[in-house]
Order: sequence, then C-alpha cells, then structure tokens
Amino acid sequence: MLFDALLDEINGRLAEPGDVPRQERLYRLLKDAVLAGRLGPGARLPATRTVAARCQMARNCVAYAFEALVAEGFLVADRQGTRVAELPRAAALAGGEGLPGLSRRGAGLRGRSVQHTVLPFAPGVPDLNLFPWQAWSRCLQRAWGEVRARELNYAPPGGEPALRAAVAHFLAGWRGVRCTPDEGFILAGAQQALEACARLLADPGDRVWVEEPGYPVARATLQGAGLVLEGVPVDGDGICIQPADWHTRPPRLVCVTPAHQFPLGSVLSLERRLALMAGARAAGAWVIEDDYDCDFYHGAGRPLPALQGLVADGPVIYLGTFSKLMYPGLRLAYLVLPRSLAPDFGEALAGWQRAGQAVEQRALAQFMESGALLRHHRQMAPVYRARQEALRAALAAHFPGWSVRGGVAGLHLVLEGAASLDDRAWAQAIATRSVVARPLSVYGMEPLVSPRGLVLGYGVADARQIPALVARLAEARF
Amino acid sequence: MLFDALLDEINGRLAEPGDVPRQERLYRLLKDAVLAGRLGPGARLPATRTVAARCQMARNCVAYAFEALVAEGFLVADRQGTRVAELPRAAALAGGEGLPGLSRRGAGLRGRSVQHTVLPFAPGVPDLNLFPWQAWSRCLQRAWGEVRARELNYAPPGGEPALRAAVAHFLAGWRGVRCTPDEGFILAGAQQALEACARLLADPGDRVWVEEPGYPVARATLQGAGLVLEGVPVDGDGICIQPADWHTRPPRLVCVTPAHQFPLGSVLSLERRLALMAGARAAGAWVIEDDYDCDFYHGAGRPLPALQGLVADGPVIYLGTFSKLMYPGLRLAYLVLPRSLAPDFGEALAGWQRAGQAVEQRALAQFMESGALLRHHRQMAPVYRARQEALRAALAAHFPGWSVRGGVAGLHLVLEGAASLDDRAWAQAIATRSVVARPLSVYGMEPLVSPRGLVLGYGVADARQIPALVARLAEARF
Repeated sequence: MLFDALLDEINGRLAEPGDVPRQERLYRLLKDAVLAGRLGPGARLPATRTVAARCQMARNCVAYAFEALVAEGFLVADRQGTRVAELPRAAALAGGEGLPGLSRRGAGLRGRSVQHTVLPFAPGVPDLNLFPWQAWSRCLQRAWGEVRARELNYAPPGGEPALRAAVAHFLAGWRGVRCTPDEGFILAGAQQALEACARLLADPGDRVWVEEPGYPVARATLQGAGLVLEGVPVDGDGICIQPADWHTRPPRLVCVTPAHQFPLGSVLSLERRLALMAGARAAGAWVIEDDYDCDFYHGAGRPLPALQGLVADGPVIYLGTFSKLMYPGLRLAYLVLPRSLAPDFGEALAGWQRAGQAVEQRALAQFMESGALLRHHRQMAPVYRARQEALRAALAAHFPGWSVRGGVAGLHLVLEGAASLDDRAWAQAIATRSVVARPLSVYGMEPLVSPRGLVLGYGVADARQIPALVARLAEARF
Repeated sequence: MLFDALLDEINGRLAEPGDVPRQERLYRLLKDAVLAGRLGPGARLPATRTVAARCQMARNCVAYAFEALVAEGFLVADRQGTRVAELPRAAALAGGEGLPGLSRRGAGLRGRSVQHTVLPFAPGVPDLNLFPWQAWSRCLQRAWGEVRARELNYAPPGGEPALRAAVAHFLAGWRGVRCTPDEGFILAGAQQALEACARLLADPGDRVWVEEPGYPVARATLQGAGLVLEGVPVDGDGICIQPADWHTRPPRLVCVTPAHQFPLGSVLSLERRLALMAGARAAGAWVIEDDYDCDFYHGAGRPLPALQGLVADGPVIYLGTFSKLMYPGLRLAYLVLPRSLAPDFGEALAGWQRAGQAVEQRALAQFMESGALLRHHRQMAPVYRARQEALRAALAAHFPGWSVRGGVAGLHLVLEGAASLDDRAWAQAIATRSVVARPLSVYGMEPLVSPRGLVLGYGVADARQIPALVARLAEARF
C-alpha cells in the first residue's frame, strides 16, 4: 500500500532531532505530501489510531494534525473517515527557477545606490559624531511622555502644527523665506518632497528642466514620476537658461539649487534669479528651489536669501531638509508653497501619502523652540568652515593649477580636472585607501561630455587629518 | 527729485512699530523699491550720510543696508557712490494670480483623503489607547542610549539587520511564512512597500489585477506607478479568477488579501490559493499577498497560514505592516521576497529610496525580542474579539435580516444592505452623530454596481458602548 511507504518515511522524519513539536511536524509532512501529489485527490487516510500506533505518537496529536489539515482544506472528513481533498496539484509551483525577475525600470535601479558611508570625503554627510543626540533624545523622551492616541495614528498630512510653525519661523529668519505655518508642509525626506512636487504639480510626459550636471537621485525621482528630463548647463553663475528656451521647449517644472549648485557650487546670480522667475511666470512653470545646502554658509557677510523670498507669491516652491542640520536618518523635509496653491496642495497631499512620525515631529518642534537646533548650528558652522579651509589648502598643495569650485555654502568642494581625466577609475583607486571621493562625471546626464574631477565632502573629515587624506587622493592617481 | 519722495515714504515706514531692526527694515524697503522698479536701473542713490540724516539713523546702519544690497547684486558700488544694478524688472513677478495650479493627477487626489479619525467604527484603526507606549518608549530610550553615528545616517536599504531577523522569526512562527532575514525587507509603511512592488516588479502600462471591491489607497498607489488596473470580482471564497483570464488578459501583478479580504472579509479558499499560484507561475506574474489584517485572528483553531508559505519559492511577495500591532504613525512595514529575487530586489531598492529610522528599527527589534510585542498581541486579541461579538450582537438586534460579512480576522465587519441602499448618504448622516462608518460603495472601482452597506471598524469602539453606537447607525437611516 502506498500509504505504508509514506508512513515509513514520516516515521523516519519524525525521529530526526529538532525544536518543532511532533504533532506540528506530522501536520507539515502530510501537507507537503498532499501538495506534492504523493497523496492524490480522494485518497483515504488510515484512522488516527493506526497512524498513532505506527508513529508512536499520542492519538490526540495525530488528531490535531488531521483537524488542522481539514480546517485548511487539505483533507476532508466524511462518514468513512478522512480523505484527501480534490485540489490542483502544486508540485509545479515549487522551485525558484522560471520566476519572473525585476521590471525593466526596477533593473535600471540596480547599481544606482551610493554607499551610505561615513568615510572622509563622502559628500553630503554631516558629522554625525557631533550631533547633540543627548539633547535630542531628551526632546523625544519628553514627547513620548506627553503622547496621546492621536500622535500614534497617522500624522496630519501637512505635518504637526507645532513643527509647521517652528519651520516657518526658522525659514523666515534664516533664509528670508516668506512663509506662514499654513504654507509650509512637512514630508518624509527630501526625496518624498521632490516626488510630491513632481506628482502634484506635473503630469506624465511633462517637461522638467534640471541642472546639468546635477543630483542623480533627484533625476531618478523626477523620471520615476513620469516626467521628461532636459538638462540645462550650469556655469559660474548657476543655471544658464537661454531666453528662447522658454518658448521652444517650455517646462512645467524647473529644478534648481540656487544657494550652492550641486555639484559645481555656483551661486545663482541675482540677474538670473529674476530672469528665472519672470520666465517661469510667463511660461506657466513652477520653479522648485532645492535649498539643500543652505544650512551652512561660509562666505563673507550674510548668505544670499532664498529665491523664494525675493517677491511675494512668486512661482516658486521652496524645498529643504533636516538631513544636514539634524541627521539623514530622521527623514524629515519641508516644502513651502505659494499662498494661492497651498490649500489645494495640502488636500492633494492628504490624498497621496499617509504621514507618520507625529511624536518625532513634536520633539523636533520642541528642539527648535528650545534653541537647541540653532545652538547646534552655531557649533557646527566654524567646524565645517575650518574643514573646508584645510581641504582647500591641502588641494592647493597637492594639485597645483587645478581648479577648485564651490564652497560658499554646504559641505563639499569640487576638484576639477582636465576633460581627459578618467575620474571614475581614479575614484575606484581612491576607494581602496579608506577614503571616498565621488567622480564628478557621475553627476552628468551625459557622462562622456560632463566635467571631470572629484566631489569631496568635508562634513566628516577631521581638519587635522585632511592633509594626509588628500595625499591619498594624489597617491591614487599614479 | 524722485528719491526724495521714496525717502519720505521709507521714513514713515521706519517709524512704524515692529520687532525688526531699523537697518534690516531699510534694507528690505530699498530692495522692494528696486524690485518694483521704483528705483530704476542705473539710478544713483544719495550718500549714506544723507540717508542717515533724513531717516535719523546711525550712518553705519545705513551702510549695513547698502552693503548687503551690493553683496546681493541689487546695488553697485562705484567711484561715484552707489547706483542701482541693471536688472530685469520684477514688478510683474508678484501676486498669486495667474500662477499655475495642481497637475491633473494632483487635482485628482483632492478629496481622496480619509479622515484620520479615532472615532468609533473608523475601519483599520487599532485601539491606540491600549498601546504599551511606556514599554515602547523604554526600548526607544535604550536604542538612543546606544546610538552611534551610523544609526543617524541613512539606514541600510533593506532595514536594520536586527529587525530583519526579528521579523523573519515572527513571520515564520505566526504566519507560516518561509523567510530568512535576507529575504525580508523593511520599508517605510505599507504604501511604500506596495509602491516598491509596483515599481521594481512592473513597468508602466503593465496590467495589475486588483480585488473588486478593494482598497482605494492601494489602487491609487498602483495607478500612480503607471500600472493599468483591472478589477477581479470577490465572492465568499475570496478573489474569483476565471481560468481563461490568465490567457486573455494576463497580469504582471495580482494583488490579493487572502487572510481577510478587504473590505468583504472573505478568506481565500485553499483551492483558489493553489490555482492562483499555478496561474501566476504559468503566466509569469507575481502575486502580492497583502496580509494587512493578519495580526488578529478570531476564528476557531489556528489561522490559515499565509499563501506565501504554501510552497517553497512560489511566485509570491508577502507584504505586512506594523501599523495595527504597533501604531500607524510608526510607518514601518515589511516585504518577503522569494529567494531567487531577493538579492536583485535589494539592490534595486537601494537605488530607489533612501531609508531612515535606524534607531526606531533597532528599538522595534528589541521590543520584539523582549516579547513585548507578543504580550501586547495576547492582550489585544480577546479585547478585539469581544468588541466584534458586541458589534455582531448589536447589528443583529438593529438590522435583522441584513447580512454581516467578514470577521474571521482583522478589525472590521461589513453590514451589507440591498443594492438600492444609498450608503453614502447614510454614512454622511451617521457622521453627524460622532460615529464614523464608511459606505461600502467607496471601495468599488465602479461605485454604481458595487455592493452597498457599511464598513464598521471595531478597533476603537468600547464593547459596552457598541449597542448605543449601533443604535445611532440605525437612527441615522431615517
């Protein structure tokens, strides 16, 4: 009898050592036998006492397994006992071969990740060792001490009112942004904020102008939202738009980094700021001002205020993040919308994404109101300035005659080389020396014609170690 | 002289009370005058001492304003003094009229938001007042006490290893999911997890089958990723796929809720589970198993294990969330991928989204390992079961003859009415009585032919109050 052979095998398997109780193992073995077709549809099972005797198990353990399999539909109990249900055979279901793979767009994302390293010269990473996590964790603790059910639920779509108020106050004072709490929206990170702009303000197929070179993650986000990207060149005064382009290839969105162009570090000139706003307004386009590097200003005098604040109700969406001033893992960013758009935008946002982290948002509002954020800022600004100076000096010493770009704000400098420089090979050689330098050419949409060099973040590089670290960059060239 | 009139006006404005220092106000007034064209390109400004005398200000305050405007490019300092820069006029830039609005897809999201209420009968909301937030906040505090720079940076794209291990262990034990830590991925909420499936496993224009009626937020997410939705009807045994459909309209993805169909509450039968897997495998499709309601099982015996665990390496992606067992604001969910796909999926995920909340992830791993999550689960299961029983009894008393669907798992029941029932009007009338009931017809892709009734969540309804609350539903009908 077929069942005899199966019972012998089950008996052997039950004798094997393991943590799983024997009744559970019997259940699984019988289930697998049905799924594999070894117990075919309609086959009658022996009585529970027969199985119990053969397997040296208590009868109620066998009954447990039978009952579970009846409840799940594998077996059917009838007047004659228990039989296997009429089920499609599942043998062909198992095994990973022949399963479909990633989608084309999914496959295109492979190899796109950047290492999330805190090694020296990783661009865009603040010095997380100097983050006042004790003060921050006290704010969190306090927010948890005051928690109510509503803060555990989804957060209000535009953010916690206390944080919206704190952000509006902060941006008005620090960046000259025109913003009431109702016009500022909290989102789960800069990437989500940019995606909200792409989806809520543009439709698939719409054109978006991006800086060339620019930020690949931003490009991928815009592309993922179905927009058609067109690169606009950047020079020493920032994005360089030809007036005719507004008519010949009008965009729906223009994404810019006026305070410190990423990666080249240009500051968008006043003349171009005004022309950009006038052009966008005439073309019915939105300017997305990504003020990603605004937190740290290293120039003389005070920083140039945000483009957004230049005129009231201009066609500008202001985007900023807490990743640098707080820490990247916090995943909180903000958008400022013109008064005329803010209510509609808030409503659409509520229909798009479920927000959370209300407790963290309240803690952050408290961290800002207590002055802890500004204190942290005041402590870090001279640290970063000193690191930039050390990096400049070391680059001048090791790479005489090379051009060093950027630095009026932010946390990185660009060492620009000749057009023939193979910056990717160089960066690979550098990576073997416990230093990270990004090849400048990875930031271009057309890497073959993009400028060459290294993008060097000084956020996590100790000033005293910078000369030795730069020496490693030079060594890796040969 | 034109400048005289402007100076008079500035003088008047400076005399107004306000918090902003006078030098800052002078700077802003002059800037606005340039932007508005009242000080035209090339116009010469009086000397700082003249302005100081007229405005009764210290000369260095006037110099501060002039220097800031020179630095920003509004004014130019030359040998003769200070003149206005050659700038495009910005008068036309101001004013919100004529700005573009939302995109078409953005406008389509308006009115789509559901109130994030914790009122009785709001579906899908757990009782957040009973969440052990003190134990949870101790885990957070402990995780913050052990924090290092790397946990403040972006989180590893698939999640913190400790949480991945805890989730794999939890799912194997509780849901019979076949999962190693490398096959489980942590994402920022169920919506992001579903979007990751849509983007990484399907391309724009690909067909996705969804349950009809189903979950509108899931449909919006799939649509937002460019997929073409086709509704598949649901009956008492779950999604009801015609075998021919696999050939005539083959999908790339099939999204199902086998444990407790949302909203109707059917459990997908074993026969259909096997046929679904066989059909998907033959068609080269992925089944997305959304186990959203798995956390609470109210049936006899033990819950039917997940579809994913039925066979090894089946064409199934398993999706679950911590929103119910923890709290919605946490924004953490998980995906389990087949072994053959997991490495590629992880790589694509890293290229798609920046992850965060590493500290919270470590705290959650600790919360799970300490047994606190299972304790919370054991406490809540009988609470929710009692609420469901109270709701059933009250519905039977107030709506004799109506059909009540679902309830083997999850946190809601469906009260189904006649096809002629205007469930939306009824839900509106109910909303005026401090109770929330969702009209069943909002869950259909074609509301006119969709079943009618009320979706009633019992997660936040106190069992003793349920009879009185159900009485309000009945009152609102007339």
